[in-house]
Parts: sequence; structure tokens; C-alpha cells
Amino acid sequence: MTSPLRLGIAGLGTVGTGVIKIVQQQAALLSARSGRDITISAVCARTRNKNRDVDLSEYDWEDDPVTLAKRDDVDVFVELVGGDTGPAMEATQAAIAAGKHVVTANKAMLAHHGQELALAAEAKGVNLRFEAAVAGGIPIIKTLTEGLAGNRITRIMGVMNGTCNYILTRMENAGLPYDTVFEEANQLGYLEADPNLDVGGIDAAHKLVLLSAIAYGTQVDFQGAQLEGIGAISIDDITAAKDMGYRIKLLGLSNMTDAGLEQTMQPCLVPYNSPLGQLEGGTNMVVVEGDAVGQIVMRGAGAGEGPTASAVMGDVMDIARGLSLPVFGQPAKSLKPAKAAKCSTASAYYMRLRLKDAPGVMAKITSALADAGVSIDRMRQKEHQDNAAPVLIVTHETTPAAIETALNAISATGDTVGTPLALKIVEV
Amino acid sequence: MTSPLRLGIAGLGTVGTGVIKIVQQQAALLSARSGRDITISAVCARTRNKNRDVDLSEYDWEDDPVTLAKRDDVDVFVELVGGDTGPAMEATQAAIAAGKHVVTANKAMLAHHGQELALAAEAKGVNLRFEAAVAGGIPIIKTLTEGLAGNRITRIMGVMNGTCNYILTRMENAGLPYDTVFEEANQLGYLEADPNLDVGGIDAAHKLVLLSAIAYGTQVDFQGAQLEGIGAISIDDITAAKDMGYRIKLLGLSNMTDAGLEQTMQPCLVPYNSPLGQLEGGTNMVVVEGDAVGQIVMRGAGAGEGPTASAVMGDVMDIARGLSLPVFGQPAKSLKPAKAAKCSTASAYYMRLRLKDAPGVMAKITSALADAGVSIDRMRQKEHQDNAAPVLIVTHETTPAAIETALNAISATGDTVGTPLALKIVEV
Repeated sequence: MTSPLRLGIAGLGTVGTGVIKIVQQQAALLSARSGRDITISAVCARTRNKNRDVDLSEYDWEDDPVTLAKRDDVDVFVELVGGDTGPAMEATQAAIAAGKHVVTANKAMLAHHGQELALAAEAKGVNLRFEAAVAGGIPIIKTLTEGLAGNRITRIMGVMNGTCNYILTRMENAGLPYDTVFEEANQLGYLEADPNLDVGGIDAAHKLVLLSAIAYGTQVDFQGAQLEGIGAISIDDITAAKDMGYRIKLLGLSNMTDAGLEQTMQPCLVPYNSPLGQLEGGTNMVVVEGDAVGQIVMRGAGAGEGPTASAVMGDVMDIARGLSLPVFGQPAKSLKPAKAAKCSTASAYYMRLRLKDAPGVMAKITSALADAGVSIDRMRQKEHQDNAAPVLIVTHETTPAAIETALNAISATGDTVGTPLALKIVEV
Repeated sequence: MTSPLRLGIAGLGTVGTGVIKIVQQQAALLSARSGRDITISAVCARTRNKNRDVDLSEYDWEDDPVTLAKRDDVDVFVELVGGDTGPAMEATQAAIAAGKHVVTANKAMLAHHGQELALAAEAKGVNLRFEAAVAGGIPIIKTLTEGLAGNRITRIMGVMNGTCNYILTRMENAGLPYDTVFEEANQLGYLEADPNLDVGGIDAAHKLVLLSAIAYGTQVDFQGAQLEGIGAISIDDITAAKDMGYRIKLLGLSNMTDAGLEQTMQPCLVPYNSPLGQLEGGTNMVVVEGDAVGQIVMRGAGAGEGPTASAVMGDVMDIARGLSLPVFGQPAKSLKPAKAAKCSTASAYYMRLRLKDAPGVMAKITSALADAGVSIDRMRQKEHQDNAAPVLIVTHETTPAAIETALNAISATGDTVGTPLALKIVEV
């Protein structure tokens, strides 16, 4: 048996604690599978004296993650501090500079600095791995980078923020408005300190752009992603979607077109009976489509102690076994800059407007749609509420540009109340 | 860039052709991702002159797979011949002996000779990889061996024979009897030359036992698997299951108990709205449960040119990238012999009997159940058909042993027509 693989763990929240539990409780299994012992040399967190539900007495304590990252008795720096800059970034850079492998769950750091860190890690000949950064326990990074390496990837779709999916499915199942369920999720501790990271789609987009880099051989490009959160979704939208056989999901979509890389994270309608449509609560799902494999669907817990620690340990075990790969599957210096393209893929759309109660209004709206080249598949006007009539429209397949033109023209009529909503209908 | 990785491909059916297409059409992509060119030195099949829809003119031809396997210009022997003995086995052994890596789609060979081949490969320091042997394009071998390596695996479930799932869902959707759909599948070319490999559950069990070996660190044990095919399932069973919120699937189940390794491949009822219950047609699904990760579900095409070639190429790319692992995740000589245990996990059961039309029959049947300790949750007697009354029973949770005792006692009454059927209800 070769020498043990020695970890230094920075960040002792749920994930860090989960990793320590696996190392302690599954020592024999990890050793049988990797051919060497996995040990922990030292740990680090902001607060030392805190009941953490694991025994840390055997490990050295460091107050500073950078010091931990550089220790001679650390082979792998496990970064579970979080945040796209600050201590996480400094310690990761220090670890790489000191020739340590890095395993991280930090999607924000990689979405913003992935290329820089990958170049540094590859120059030093160390591994930088981040299975835990995307979709919790689902081994999607490995699947995309290795299992599907023989495929030209044609499309990636994913529901990768459990909190948003919890909110949307809870609204539907309990018939509650967005604000109420948002508050509920907050009370339950499901929301990030800055809730916009969740409900604004930022956290999910961080994950999507990492998958895109691997799939299309491009540099991580968070700035090029188009984001839209779930705050505008009403219970009426959810009900209307359901009546038509759809369900609303915060869906990440990425595909490479002749114009460039399209990356969107926005609420979409997906068929109720599709795997994505069936997804309940905090569960995540990633759908990958490749030219050879067709469609692969993966589903699992997107967060939580065990699932995320499982992903961290998958990376640790790869390193213990001597498996080594470029960070994004091919050398970082060979990754092309992503050319961001605005989404131009045609699809049907769901539109919800609230129209003023006046003669001729509907004629103006339908004209605006016709002028933009948007053709109506189905339309329903509901009874007036608060002196405005909710109108639901499903369009035939059309481009995002045509929808934008139509929405602008509709707003310009001055006959709508509030902001009209348009959601893509994605057939999967 | 290092030297090219040179393949020798034996077997030019759909999968072999698919692999050649990927190597030819995705050369740049494969090279960018692996850092070296993937080339083909020579190929081999039973019939040379046959239109194969790919250009073979650049490759040497061998008539004998053993000769191909030993060629100096072959680094990886790709075995797509099939069959658990004969040429596939001889050529695989020859390749290993000659120090070549082997990539195979041959589940039968590995289910019967996996331990022997793994020992040989590991002694020679070569890779023997078989992603394509299990669940087509779904990278389940990689997921289980690597991605979930930090987990104690607690249960594996899978629908891994697309033909059986096609037959069962087609029976339901078209309301057709088993024999008719079986003949239809035969006409469509969906069935193996020996159809019992499919409908008898043998092919699916070959796959299940490979997953068990990786999951539990045991030697592959096909003999220890309990098999039951789908031939006894009637359209009435499918309808009755549906009425109760279930669907019948040929389900593989494996878990390690104190008594030993339970491996069953049999028709079971699963909740209609569960991921397994939603599965249509030829699609495969594997569900893995681990102590840390919880439940991971993977879904994709279980067969076909593209998906299976994608799996073969995933293995080829791993070898090209220098990733190397023991065949079943831990060294073959450390794998423990599997101690096969008869399934003892308690569950509810669905039973279907046909009772003679005579006084006191029902009393005898219910007594037989009571005597065996089987408690009835729901029971329905339907109108008589052909002088026998179909009776459907759902039991409370009970053991397989109790069900067996009850079935024997029921048969011994002499009051049943035909063979009673009992199917496990698996909650997932």
C-alpha cells in the first residue's frame, strides 16, 4: 500500500462535517477502493469553539485557510469556505502554488475565476476538481468530462437550484403565492444569505457555465449567461401551465450554435410528464444530450451534508487513485474564449398579460403580436380582476427576438397593467 | 502530444460500426480531449464482404480476433464479438496476455468469467473496461466505481433490459396480450437469437451482477442471482397494477444483508409515478442508493449504435488519458467471494390466483394465507372467466419465505386453476 493521502479541510459547515464523517466512518472502504488510507492532517474554520457533531481532536487546527493550504502534511486542500473571492480564492491559489491538489465545492469562485485557476493548476501539474460545485451528489462533472467524452455535446439542460424548485413545486402543491413560500423557505433556512443568489438564478447559472466549459471546450463565461429569476412567477402562471400539461421550472439551458454559445437560466415551461416536469422539491436534475449517446438524465439530491460530501469524496478518491485530468477535460490553454450569443433558438412561448378593460384593447394586442411575426396557438381571457383582464397566450414556435419585439410593442400600447410575462416552452 | 492510441476492433455489428464512426467523425474532438490521436489499426468480423456503412479501407483486416488482439500495432483490443465463451473469451485472454488493454461490451462473458479476467488483467497491469456492457449509454459503471466511491452502497435497482420494458409498456399502452407483443418484438428484431436471454431476465441479470461486484466489493456471482422472467405477466396483471397506482417492471435489485448478497431480477410492481414507473419503451434506468449520496437515478438509451458506442468510447478515452483502475474498482484479489443469500427483504406483494368455482374455496385460500402469516391488505374477486374466478390480492408487508409457503399451501388445496402469481411491490 502506498502512503496515505492527507487532506486539509477548510470550512466546517455541513459539507465539511459530512466529509469528515465519511473519512472517519468509511476508512476501511476508502482504503480498499483506493489502495491507500485517506487521512486528515488539519482543519480550519472561522469559529473554533462550536459543537460540530464530529470529533476533531485528532486534527491540527489552523485559523487561516492559506496556512492550512500550504502545510507540508497536506496533499489535498479541500476548499469548503465559499465565496468567489477572499479567503477561498487566496487559499486555493496558495494551495496550487504550493503544489497541492484542490477539491472544492465553490461554484461562484470557479464561475468567475475558473480559467485562471485551471491554468495555474495545470502549470503546476496538480488537480483542481469540483464535482461538489454542481448539482450536489449527482456526478455530472465526471459524466460529462469522462463518461461522455466520445460525444459532441449538443445541449445541456438542468434544474440545479433546489431552493427554486422547492418554491415552485410548493406554490403548486399548496396553492400558495410566491411571497408566502419565499418567506417559508427563508424560515426553513433554505435561502442563501443573499436570496437573489437562489431566486435570481445566479447560483444555478454558476453551475451551468461550468458544465458549458466542459461540454463545448470553451473558457468559463458567466458574464455571457442570460439570467432571469423566478420572482415574477405567480400561482396563476403555475395553474395555467398545469392546465396545458406543463410545469414551470427554473431551467438552465446551454447549447453551441453557429452564432456562439447560448447560456440561459430562466423559468421555462416543460412537459408535466417529462423527467424534468416530474421533479419535486429540492431535487436536482441534469439532462445531457450528445450526438452519439442521445439523452442522458441524472437525478439526485442537489444539496445537503451527505450528497455534497459524497461528491467531494468522489474527487478525493480519484486523486487517491492517481486519476488525473485537465480541470475542464482538456488543457485550459486549449479552451477557446466563449463567444456569447443571445438565445436565438426558436420555441413556443407562454405569455401572460393583464389588459385594461377598454374597447379595442385585444385588437391592439393581437396586432402587436402579428406585426412581430408571432402567431397565436391558443389564447384565453379570464374574468376581470382589479379592473384588469388576465390574458394567457401560447404562441406557435417563434424566436426570442420576435417575442421581445412583441412584448415591447404590447407595453407601448399603454393598455397593459403591470409587466407582461413571457416564458419559453421547452420540449424535452 | 504523445503517440496515438491504436485500436483493434473485433466485431463489426451496430456497435462496432458506431465506434468507427465516432473515431472517424470526431477525431479532432477526441484528440483535444485526450491529448492524443485515437486511431484504428485493424478490424475483424465473421464476414468480410458486407456493406457496413463505414469506410474500412484504411484498416488492416484480420479474420481471427485472437490474431487481431495480439497485433503489435494494437494498444487497445475492443471486443464486440459477444458470447460468454468462444472467440470473445479467447481473444480477450490473448489480448491481456499480450499486454493490451481491453474494452468490451460483453456482459455475458464478464458475468461468467469476470473474476478470472480481472485477475489476469491486473496481473498484467492492463485495463479491462466494460461500461458498454451495462445499460448502454448510461455511464453507470463509472458512476458507481468512481463518482460514488465515497459511499457504502446500500441498494441498486435497475430496469436494464430494454426489450422487456418495451414489451411490458407496449402491452399496457396497446392493451395487447404478452404473446402478441412478444411476436411483434421478434418481428422488429428486438429479441436476441435466444429470446430467453431477454424475457427470461438473463441478460439483465448479467448486468446486475457486474454492478453488485463493484458496489459491494465481491466477486461477480451470476449463479447466486435469482431470476424470473416476464412470460407469466398478463394484461390483467398490468391493468390491476395500474388501478392500484403501480406499474410492472422487470426490476433488478441487489443489496448486501447480514445473510449475504441478495440479487434478484424479476417482475415487480413499482409506483406508477416514481422514476422507474415512468419509464417507457426501450429506455433503461439505474437507481443507486448510497449512505451519503442518498438516491441517484440515471436514465438513457440501453442499446443501439450511438449509445453503446458512446460507452465504448468513454472507456477508450479513459485509457487514452491514462486513467487506470482495477476492473471492479478494487483489486480483484481483494474481492471477497459473494455469499449468495435468498431474498429475505420484506415487502408487500401482489398476488393473482384463479380459483375454481366451488363453495368454501375462498375460505381455504384465506386460511392458507393466514397460516403462512401473510396478512391481506386488499382483495378483489372478479367475475368468473372459463369457470374460474380471478382473485387479486395485495398483502401487507411480508417475507418472500412466507409468500412461498402461502403459494405452496394454496396450490396444495387443488382449488386453483393454473399457476398462482406473486410479484413483489417495491417502493422507491
